[in-house]
Amino acid sequence: MQQTKILLDENEIPTHWYNVVADMPNPPAPPLGPDGQPVGPDALAAIFPEALIEQEVSAERWIPIPDEVRQAYTLWRPSPLFRAHRLEQVLGTPARIYYKYEGVSPAGSHKPNTAVAQAWYNRQAGIRRLTTETGAGQWGSSLALAGQMFGLDVRVYMVKVSYEQKPFRRSMMHTWGAEVLPSPSDQTEAGRKILAEHPDSPGSLGIAISEAVEEAASRDDTNYSLGSVLNHVLLHQTVIGQEAKKQFEKIGDYPDVVYAPCGGGSNFGGVAFPFFADKAAGREVRLVAVEPSSCPTLTKGRYTYDYGDAIGMTPLLLMYTLGHDFMPPGIHAGGLRYHGDSALVSQLYHEGLIEARAVPQLATFEAGVQFARAEGIIPAPESNHAIRAVIDDALACKETGEPKVLFFNLSGHGHFDMAAYDKYFAGELEDYEYPEAAIEEALAHLPKVAAPA
Amino acid sequence: MQQTKILLDENEIPTHWYNVVADMPNPPAPPLGPDGQPVGPDALAAIFPEALIEQEVSAERWIPIPDEVRQAYTLWRPSPLFRAHRLEQVLGTPARIYYKYEGVSPAGSHKPNTAVAQAWYNRQAGIRRLTTETGAGQWGSSLALAGQMFGLDVRVYMVKVSYEQKPFRRSMMHTWGAEVLPSPSDQTEAGRKILAEHPDSPGSLGIAISEAVEEAASRDDTNYSLGSVLNHVLLHQTVIGQEAKKQFEKIGDYPDVVYAPCGGGSNFGGVAFPFFADKAAGREVRLVAVEPSSCPTLTKGRYTYDYGDAIGMTPLLLMYTLGHDFMPPGIHAGGLRYHGDSALVSQLYHEGLIEARAVPQLATFEAGVQFARAEGIIPAPESNHAIRAVIDDALACKETGEPKVLFFNLSGHGHFDMAAYDKYFAGELEDYEYPEAAIEEALAHLPKVAAPA
Repeated sequence: MQQTKILLDENEIPTHWYNVVADMPNPPAPPLGPDGQPVGPDALAAIFPEALIEQEVSAERWIPIPDEVRQAYTLWRPSPLFRAHRLEQVLGTPARIYYKYEGVSPAGSHKPNTAVAQAWYNRQAGIRRLTTETGAGQWGSSLALAGQMFGLDVRVYMVKVSYEQKPFRRSMMHTWGAEVLPSPSDQTEAGRKILAEHPDSPGSLGIAISEAVEEAASRDDTNYSLGSVLNHVLLHQTVIGQEAKKQFEKIGDYPDVVYAPCGGGSNFGGVAFPFFADKAAGREVRLVAVEPSSCPTLTKGRYTYDYGDAIGMTPLLLMYTLGHDFMPPGIHAGGLRYHGDSALVSQLYHEGLIEARAVPQLATFEAGVQFARAEGIIPAPESNHAIRAVIDDALACKETGEPKVLFFNLSGHGHFDMAAYDKYFAGELEDYEYPEAAIEEALAHLPKVAAPA
Repeated sequence: MQQTKILLDENEIPTHWYNVVADMPNPPAPPLGPDGQPVGPDALAAIFPEALIEQEVSAERWIPIPDEVRQAYTLWRPSPLFRAHRLEQVLGTPARIYYKYEGVSPAGSHKPNTAVAQAWYNRQAGIRRLTTETGAGQWGSSLALAGQMFGLDVRVYMVKVSYEQKPFRRSMMHTWGAEVLPSPSDQTEAGRKILAEHPDSPGSLGIAISEAVEEAASRDDTNYSLGSVLNHVLLHQTVIGQEAKKQFEKIGDYPDVVYAPCGGGSNFGGVAFPFFADKAAGREVRLVAVEPSSCPTLTKGRYTYDYGDAIGMTPLLLMYTLGHDFMPPGIHAGGLRYHGDSALVSQLYHEGLIEARAVPQLATFEAGVQFARAEGIIPAPESNHAIRAVIDDALACKETGEPKVLFFNLSGHGHFDMAAYDKYFAGELEDYEYPEAAIEEALAHLPKVAAPA
């Protein structure tokens, strides 16, 4: 029999998170306040516990994972590494294709890896309530689960277009005891401002972040929790790439290329950063972030200081951005509808150390269906972006005869995205045109800060 | 750290299926034809391939699993055995609770264990097309997946109430390339007959079976595939219990009680039969089938010969039955809405070798939500029946102080059943009264056959 899954034991769950900052050639640019001056850790204390702020600014290579968080990880970790024998056969490629499957978590994606960590640190700090945003609902459901596990109440501002497209993600959050509101909502000043200007706004991650941050900042018992973008979030996700490296070691193989979908960057950072450590040490490995061509942050955005949210409540981050008030088209990969990107991912991309690629929506669903028919698992629309890139490259290998090793993070299953698959089969799914005018306009609203050196 | 999951390697996937017939004290009663005479294997040849008919009547203890089927199993097997530490803690019970999780299959339940076997044997016999029925959609989606894997077209007759309640199970079947029709349909004589009498019929597994069998019997290129009830189906599911026994052996524990939901019996047989082998050899272990109190086949049905389908197309099986034209209430555990039960399960129950218990719908959802909040995984409504029984017994252990070992098969996740959870949270879920009059009436329609000795 051919081996399909490479498994690890629970005692092989990483004991530390890997901090890519330690291996970056240049230190990360600091977040800036409205005055253009670097923001100190204190400014974040209204919405984050001290331990997470320390992680946010740390340059230590290894940060220990608390025992209770590792224990929570045992509910689904280590996740399996699959060799995609059947997909390789269907494609007729000499490439060896592997995927790490994060859909085994109860919430069905990689997001609980940071959700349980964030919930635990907040609970340790005496916090009883968390607010957050969610796009496709993967993050919101993950934080609902984590809140339930550590006894915290959770309120989720869910991007309205997803709230309507994915009612059962809401049900999932309810099952784990969380409260869910469509965003923009009338519960916050930020939401009311957007609704006044755009009553039919489909919402965006940026708007939902504004609402959740505003509420957390205004209540002592409540903190805010973010599902991507920030350094500490990407840090927690590095369990994925660390496990994958152990799994490759077990079978004596190693990827030539690592792929992940990239919205805020936690999926990509989680799987790719531990491989970046090898790259920094001289090993040859390519790291490819795959994004939607209708929200092409890395491939078409500007590298500059911008807000992380839609209305300018967060500190300014040096990142690739399409402009904080850019409203991405209502694509079904809700987790990739974000105007900006992680500062760490952005800096690595800016310095030419990682690659980025944009793919259109229809082609991603075509790849997802091909994958599902070969491998069984029905992927989340976000994951389909990585699958598209891998299939394209596997077919290129077929042309050249190169037996490359292609590895991607299958970040989640599509069980709550079947309405999108229905639309695809019905021929009703659109390829949005590249929204050049909207991006131009949003970029014109960038905050006035001196460009980085 | 406490160990949560007990894992096996792929080379520990069982090499043989276990046939409980070899260990039953009495041989199974034969199926009968309309004339009251035993039906030979030949009568089944119009709709089943020879290899499956041989398995259906075999008394061999061990039947080898073909290599290609074991290879297909590697996509999700071996499935993990979980120790439910967090649930034990919430309940405050001294009981040790374990569950085998079959929701890791691409279709999200135990059903692919037999689907891939049936698809493979049919393909080997030159068949290009399969028809089947499905209740909740777990079986239909599993056969869709299996058909895709081995190059067979699949048509699924889906019980109408589930077709409407669970649109995304349909989408899943479409993703894997199958065709799905609501049953009763106008495509078969059986369907048209039911529609003429009951135009608003919500359908039932019995009706859908009639439709699928009729179509398969009328076409040379098409066979029929059943998701439960028959001996060969239960046989294929015994990989579950066999793996569980190995997993218990690894940790030096063993169940006092094994629980599974019971509709047609494949879930229960799959997990319990390998433990029955131990029981037959003198080991003490209780085996409990849990069914809905609104469709109480084992606990309130009659042990007699009856049809497997609604209108009398199948041979007569000696089983517990509520009457082949009994229409179960539209509960959300669609997989348990069946008037009869596996002949093997029925005989073991009749002989006092296994137990049965009936539980009402609301209490099963209460148990499922308690489980989800403790363990993370959101269970299928069918699985909630076993969870209800386990929680009840774990709470009894709390009273008595007994550290019993309670083990159940978590047969699937509830990702396609969130509408049912929504209704539960909204207080809209009903506990149907025990449908005594309907059962009385259906039992009055039993075929006239001499009662068994």
